[in-house]
Amino acid sequence: MKFADIVAGRRFQLGPVRVEEEEVIDFARRYDDQWFHTDPEAAERGPFQGLIASGWHTCALAMRLVSREILQGSESFASPGLSHVRWPHPVRPGDELTLEVVVHESRTSASRPTLGVVRWQWLMRNGHGTLVLDLEATSMFRLAAA
Amino acid sequence: MKFADIVAGRRFQLGPVRVEEEEVIDFARRYDDQWFHTDPEAAERGPFQGLIASGWHTCALAMRLVSREILQGSESFASPGLSHVRWPHPVRPGDELTLEVVVHESRTSASRPTLGVVRWQWLMRNGHGTLVLDLEATSMFRLAAA
Repeated sequence: MKFADIVAGRRFQLGPVRVEEEEVIDFARRYDDQWFHTDPEAAERGPFQGLIASGWHTCALAMRLVSREILQGSESFASPGLSHVRWPHPVRPGDELTLEVVVHESRTSASRPTLGVVRWQWLMRNGHGTLVLDLEATSMFRLAAA
Repeated sequence: MKFADIVAGRRFQLGPVRVEEEEVIDFARRYDDQWFHTDPEAAERGPFQGLIASGWHTCALAMRLVSREILQGSESFASPGLSHVRWPHPVRPGDELTLEVVVHESRTSASRPTLGVVRWQWLMRNGHGTLVLDLEATSMFRLAAA
């Protein structure tokens, strides 16, 4: 998709992506080594009565969908950051996650007309429709000179 | 470390962690499949003149340090989210990243005295001292009843 197709007000429905227990454990062992992400038996006795995915893993799964289903073939080249990230509900192995992307703003920079800037909200839900991730990201695109 | 040791005003210096090219490419192929994260030759001709790590990978490396050097053995059990994330400078293979963690607030919940809440800022820098990640996270701890 191209920057020109990512217009304010547009909504994209991406996914689903399935959360695999092996991947939950593998990700957490590398990057978020806490027992409720890596040890199914201890997690069973913990506050969530079972293994939950690292919030960073949930973000990475959202990015997988955005990079494959929207940014592939685009002029995307970087992101300056996120204005908020919320993890309102745990993600568990076996969940099938879908991502709704809402474009809040899409513009070219006044000072640099070859810079496209998109501000969008990413809302990830599990198979019950429960929100598990809510973030707002800014993405930058390198456009051809007009 | 225990929740009781994570007091407001305290600063922690964590790391370093080395950014490996193979891991940059592997992470991006799974979660952020864009050419400037996965294709060294194309990235060489791109805006950063070389491969850069996914911002999500940088976050994951910060979490690796926090989970191993602070949260190991603590009462940590979840996070509701982050108030901001900024990636002010690219992270490249070969970088040695250190993380400064500044505790802004540490309190027990007024309504739930067994809930500890920490609000802290994570500042990651490369070997030149350049800031590459700036985020503010909230972490929750499950405390024994007094």
